[in-house]
Order: sequence, then C-alpha cells, then structure tokens
Amino acid sequence: MTDQTSRPAVEPFDAVDVIRTKRDRQRLSPEQIDWVIDAYTRGVVAEEQMAALAMAVFLNGMGREEIARWTAAMIASGERMDFSSLDKATTDKHSTGGVGDKITLPLAPLVASFGVAVPQLSGRGLGHTGGTLDKLEAIPGWRASLSNDEMMRQLADVGAVICAAGSGLAPADKKLYALRDITSTVEAIPLIASSIMSKKIAEGTAALTLDVKTGAGAFMKEEADARELARTMVDLGTDAGVRTVALLTDMSAPLGRTAGNGLEVRESLEVLAGGGPADVVELTVALAREMLEAAGVRDADVDAALTDGRAMDTWRAMITAQGGDADAPLPVAAHVEELRAAEDGVVTGLDAMGVGVAAWRLGAGRSRPGEAVQAAAGVEIEKHLGEEVRAGDVLARLHTDTPERMGRALESLEGSWTLAAPGTEVPEHRIVLDRIA
Amino acid sequence: MTDQTSRPAVEPFDAVDVIRTKRDRQRLSPEQIDWVIDAYTRGVVAEEQMAALAMAVFLNGMGREEIARWTAAMIASGERMDFSSLDKATTDKHSTGGVGDKITLPLAPLVASFGVAVPQLSGRGLGHTGGTLDKLEAIPGWRASLSNDEMMRQLADVGAVICAAGSGLAPADKKLYALRDITSTVEAIPLIASSIMSKKIAEGTAALTLDVKTGAGAFMKEEADARELARTMVDLGTDAGVRTVALLTDMSAPLGRTAGNGLEVRESLEVLAGGGPADVVELTVALAREMLEAAGVRDADVDAALTDGRAMDTWRAMITAQGGDADAPLPVAAHVEELRAAEDGVVTGLDAMGVGVAAWRLGAGRSRPGEAVQAAAGVEIEKHLGEEVRAGDVLARLHTDTPERMGRALESLEGSWTLAAPGTEVPEHRIVLDRIA
Repeated sequence: MTDQTSRPAVEPFDAVDVIRTKRDRQRLSPEQIDWVIDAYTRGVVAEEQMAALAMAVFLNGMGREEIARWTAAMIASGERMDFSSLDKATTDKHSTGGVGDKITLPLAPLVASFGVAVPQLSGRGLGHTGGTLDKLEAIPGWRASLSNDEMMRQLADVGAVICAAGSGLAPADKKLYALRDITSTVEAIPLIASSIMSKKIAEGTAALTLDVKTGAGAFMKEEADARELARTMVDLGTDAGVRTVALLTDMSAPLGRTAGNGLEVRESLEVLAGGGPADVVELTVALAREMLEAAGVRDADVDAALTDGRAMDTWRAMITAQGGDADAPLPVAAHVEELRAAEDGVVTGLDAMGVGVAAWRLGAGRSRPGEAVQAAAGVEIEKHLGEEVRAGDVLARLHTDTPERMGRALESLEGSWTLAAPGTEVPEHRIVLDRIA
Repeated sequence: MTDQTSRPAVEPFDAVDVIRTKRDRQRLSPEQIDWVIDAYTRGVVAEEQMAALAMAVFLNGMGREEIARWTAAMIASGERMDFSSLDKATTDKHSTGGVGDKITLPLAPLVASFGVAVPQLSGRGLGHTGGTLDKLEAIPGWRASLSNDEMMRQLADVGAVICAAGSGLAPADKKLYALRDITSTVEAIPLIASSIMSKKIAEGTAALTLDVKTGAGAFMKEEADARELARTMVDLGTDAGVRTVALLTDMSAPLGRTAGNGLEVRESLEVLAGGGPADVVELTVALAREMLEAAGVRDADVDAALTDGRAMDTWRAMITAQGGDADAPLPVAAHVEELRAAEDGVVTGLDAMGVGVAAWRLGAGRSRPGEAVQAAAGVEIEKHLGEEVRAGDVLARLHTDTPERMGRALESLEGSWTLAAPGTEVPEHRIVLDRIA
C-alpha cells in the first residue's frame, strides 16, 4: 500500500504509482514522465523500479504523446549541443544497426565533401552488431574522443566528424539503456525510438536521416515493426523541429562482403575509391542524397564525388584531424581459416545473424561493455547472394588473433548459406525497401 | 544480444533469456524456474532482473504447472519445518488480510482447545492491513520470537502458538516480496498464491484453511479475482499433499468494531468470553469448523468452547507461555476524538479501506518495514452496517498517542459511511461467501 504519508515531502510522485499506471494500461501523464525520468537520473527511482516500468512499457506500449514526452525528458536530463554558430548546414544520420553496416565510414566524408557539416556522434558495438568507433579504431592513431571545441573546429574545417558522444548528452538514456540490456526490454519500439531520438535531438542537428533496418540481422526482424519504428522516430524528430526522413532497408543478409572492424574499413576505402560492393554503394548513395537534400543541397552528383576522389580527400582529412594515419596499413589477423562449400549451387540466402555472431565470436565484438575488441577479427564473405558456388569453393574467410575462437565461430556459420540448384534465377537483392517522411 | 559465451560457465541459464521467455508469453520450463529462484536467492539474478520478470509474470501470467514449480522452488530456497513428531494433528490457517481482521487471535486457542496443534507463523502489518504480531504485542510482556524448540514445546503443551516466522523459511519469497512491494507487482495471483503457499507448505502443516478476502478492504477487490486466487492456492496445497480448503469471505466492510492493535485484542477477548460482534464470531466459528474437520475432529461443538471458557483458558495459556501478562490492562491512547453523523439514516455501507487507512494513519500501522507501531492507536466503530443513526450520534472514535495524526485520519474516513433514509431495510451482511475445496 502506498500513500502520501510514505513519500518524501520533496517528491511529487511515487514510483510505485507511476509503475502501476502503466501496468494497468493507463496513459502516463506528462508530469509523471518528467518526474520518473528525472528521478531515475537522480537515483531516487531505483533500478528495479525502472526495470518494472520498462517491462510494463514493453508489454503495454506508449502513445505518441507519451513517447514524445519521454524523449523530451531524456533530452532534458543532460546538455544539448548547438551547431548554429557554424557557417554551414548540419545533417546527421543514424542507423539502427546491422551486420557489416560500415556505411557511416564512406557516407560522412562523402556528404561533407559537398560543403555541409556531418556531426556523427557514434557508439561502440555490443553483441553481434559492430560499432562505428570500434571500426575506426582499427586505423593506427585514430582517436574517438574529442572535446566540443575540437569537434566544432573539425566541422568547420573538414566538415565530417565521427566521434564518441560525450557523457553529458541524455544521461538518462545511457542509464536506461544499460538497464534494458540486462532485463530483456531492449526491443520495444517506444523505448528504442526515444533512446535514439533523445540522443540525436540533443546533438542539435537541423536534419536527420534514419536508416531503419529489418530482417534477420536487425533488431526489428519483422518489416511491420521496422516500419512502425521508422514512423515513430520520424514523428519524434518532426515534432522536435528536426527535418527527419527514414529509409527502410534490408538487413536479412550482411551489407557488403565484410563484418569486422579493420575488414570493414578496408571495404569502405574501396567505396571511397569508386569501387566496393554494389549493395554498400547503393545504400551509401541513397543515404547521401537524403542527407544532402535535407541540408538544402539539391541535385548533388553523389556518384561523381565517389569516383573523382573528393569523398576520399575528405576521408583523409577527417582521419588525419583525429590523429589517424590514413596511409598506415590496416592490421592483419594472426589466423585465417576458410569455410568451403560442400556442394554446387546458387546462393539464395545468406543469414546476417549467423555472420554477425561469427564475427563477434572471432573477437570483433564484445559481450560486456568495456571489453577490448580485435581490430583484425571478422568474417570476409567470398560468396554472396546470387553468386554461383562449386563444391570446395571458399564461402568465407574467418580472421582472428585467437584461434581457439574458430570453433564456435564456424558453428554459428552452419546453415548461414542457402543454396539452390545451379542455374536457378535469383531475384535482385533490394537494399532500400521504402522511404518514410 | 546474449549468448553462451557471455555466461559464467557454472550458470546453466541467463536471466535475460528467462525474462524474455515470459515477456514473449512462453511457458517457463521447470529448470528455468528452479534456476531463476535459486540464482535470485544467491544474488546472481539482480533485483532489476527479477523486477522485470515479476512484471512480465504480472502481465502475462503463469499456468498451474509453472505456479506449482515456482512455489516449490521458493520452498527449496530455505528450510522446512516438520511437526510429525508431535502427538497431535496440526492444522493451520492463513488470511489474505483485511481491515479489523483479528480472527487469528480467538481462532487459534479455540481450535487448540479441541486437542489439535495450531502453529500460526504470522507477520507484521504493512500499509492499511494490520499484522497479527503487532496486535499481540499490545499485550504487556508478550514476545513474538520463539526458537523452534520453544515452539514445539508450546504446541505439545498448549496446542496454540502465534509467533514470528523464522528467516529460514522460503528466503526467496522474503526477498521477492520486498521487491514486489516497491515495483507495483504485488497484486498478481500467481505471485500472491506462490508467496503465501511457499511459506505455508514450508511450515509443514498437514492441513490448511485459507481465508481469502474480497472487497474494498482486501487486496482482491473483485470477487472473481479472489475466487481465482483461492482456487490457485487450494490447487497448490493439494498438489503438495496438504489438505487445503478456502473460504471466500467479505471484506467490503471492516470485520467487527475495531481496527488497531490493542483495540482488536480487546474485541478478541470479548469473542473468547462468549460475546463479541456477530461477524467476528461467525467467521471465527466457520474457520474453526474447517480447521477441525481438516484435522480429523468431527462434529466439534465450537460455539460451546467459546461460551464455556475452554477457548479462553487456552488463550491465557498461550499468552502466558510467550511471556505475556493475560491479566494486564491493555494500553489506552492518550488522545481520543469522536466522529459524529451529520444526518439521520441507516448505515448501508462502511468502507473497509477508509477505516483501514485511518487506523494506519493514527499510528496502528507502518509505512516502512521496521517502523514502530502504536499499541493503542486505531478506530473504534460505533455505527456498523444495518444500524440506525441520528444526526450528532458518534459514528466512530479515533485513538492515537500523537494528536497531529488526527487530521489526515479523519480525512480518510470522509464518505466511509453510506447512509440510506431512516427505516430502510438493510440486507443481512454475509461474511462467508463461498467454500472452495
């Protein structure tokens, strides 16, 4: 039983009542939401209370107004950045994460090469999806942490910055994300949407392009869920005055031919050099067009910037500005094993989750926040969707510095390739499924 | 993402997976239940993880087999008592709690006066429902804590014992109950049923009579919920080899004319002296018949034992054995205020919750575990259901040692009496609504 007499005089609400409200499928009031996020950040609402509330939200949902207020309360828990002093338009991008998703690496310098500012505050990987910072740290000397001043200077000089988000942005979200991770409350659309958008809105960009992934290697396995997440985030951004567009993209198969930190940098360099796998190029170009359009740059010849070296020049400037040696060789794994095909066929399916878990087990990812990752570990795909395979052909190469990890990585690749009879027609692999504005 | 590689080698399950199972409306396996209760008791499953699981159970439920296993796992978390060395049958009773529910006080000695053993391991109050131990502690000298040896000796000599449950019984339940209390996960039938029955089965009685209350002053406001709780507990007891019967009883109005520790002892003494309010006598007698029947005592003349002093003799022996002075006057409150009727009428409703909260606010109950309670504080009802009232008549007397508590206690009594026009026929107030066996 709870009652006013049991509340500290200074707290206007009781966590037990707030939890009960959502548990009983009622709408949380704006004041309840403001209080519970603030009190959780202050430690007045205990972890176990927020865990119960998160599960109630997971199972009973939140309406559009509740999600917007929840997001605003998380933004209000910390500082906000402001790029209005810059002499250029800012345009930002966020991906919900997938296997082989190195798109930020070629994309940020590509877009910045058109004279706009791309502030990419990024994270580290956890589980089977890699983190952009982990990837760039494969480059000798490159550092992820910048002061706000360094970041502003680089945005003015180079245009593109990929760096770690400061701890001052949406601290409530940081705390809540760690809690959701251990309480099976990650995959709820209201919680995912508010988590992503609180950080992105706090970052202060004027325009935001979202890459919302669906399929086996994405958080949202079902397209309908991904679509709802995209719609929720576009609404949140729009309501907060950020020009927001989402692309719904396929993550049933890995993006490109690499999953792993240094391997993905290498593939990104191929794209910046005008080559690279078709799917990676397609998505990079589609996102670049959206980001430039949102920043007011019309009819940009994005493909030309990839082939004529402008994007690569910006990449080199961006890496160098953060201490990286753009000419240094990328690390090479101490051990490489090959996975070979047992029969002939055509690849009609390549399971992103199998590949993601394999790369993770090889040492490219971490199981606990703070763990070190291997720069050279990962999976290199030789036979991708639509390709002909002969028995004995190499399907993939597994890279690691710690060979005892090979066994379990190979296990997770079992059944990842689906082969049809040789000669079977394979429909084109579409990456961009829809656009939500 | 979770995976075997992130689990300590010694733990066969991961809390995140167990939570996800129930979150996704799947059945928990017996092994998952055994592990999660044991690991929670050991501190390997964190409070926030159990909070998320409790909310998932609250919202998605558990089936009969899951509840039985959950109960068994909580029993297995601690020690079990064994009364088989006693030379008499044991019969136990549990009430789900209500306002003015002092029934255990006259009931235990009444039943024991027929030569059976009544081991009543009881608790303290929290919120608006009082605790049996708090009530008996109003008797000078009486102590709630007995060693197992003292308890067994008293069961052999006197037959009735009302004492504190040792901390060794179902420690998982103690931990989980404290967590549910702060996470709005108290009122779930699977969790209530397993909590009550784990303690009662661990106590080792051969027969158990349940008093499951419904109405404004009970945890189960709706009769259908109370009925389901009763059925669930009877099933659990039966499956565990305990002869279990439940009475479904009314808790829309307070039981008897007192709510408060010393006040309820005084009313219990009236019942043991052959008098007392009709509703308290009715329920005491009904429960006594069930308990005796379950212990194999047929056709006991329970009413006679109340009027001829046998039950009172056992009461005196029981109180004396635990250091209490059965002849000492009960404490009297320093301040008494009267609540008077504003108009004429007949009492057709008396809100148990209003009275319970008033008694609590006067000092009879506690807001936090461990708080002291006042022995003399509480509400004395002058006009109960069916009684004629004249404007200016005393409806109730409020007792407290701390007069600053009067105001909020009076507030909670506002509207607690429902009056109909004078002369209105009021249907008889039935206490026992049904029997579930």
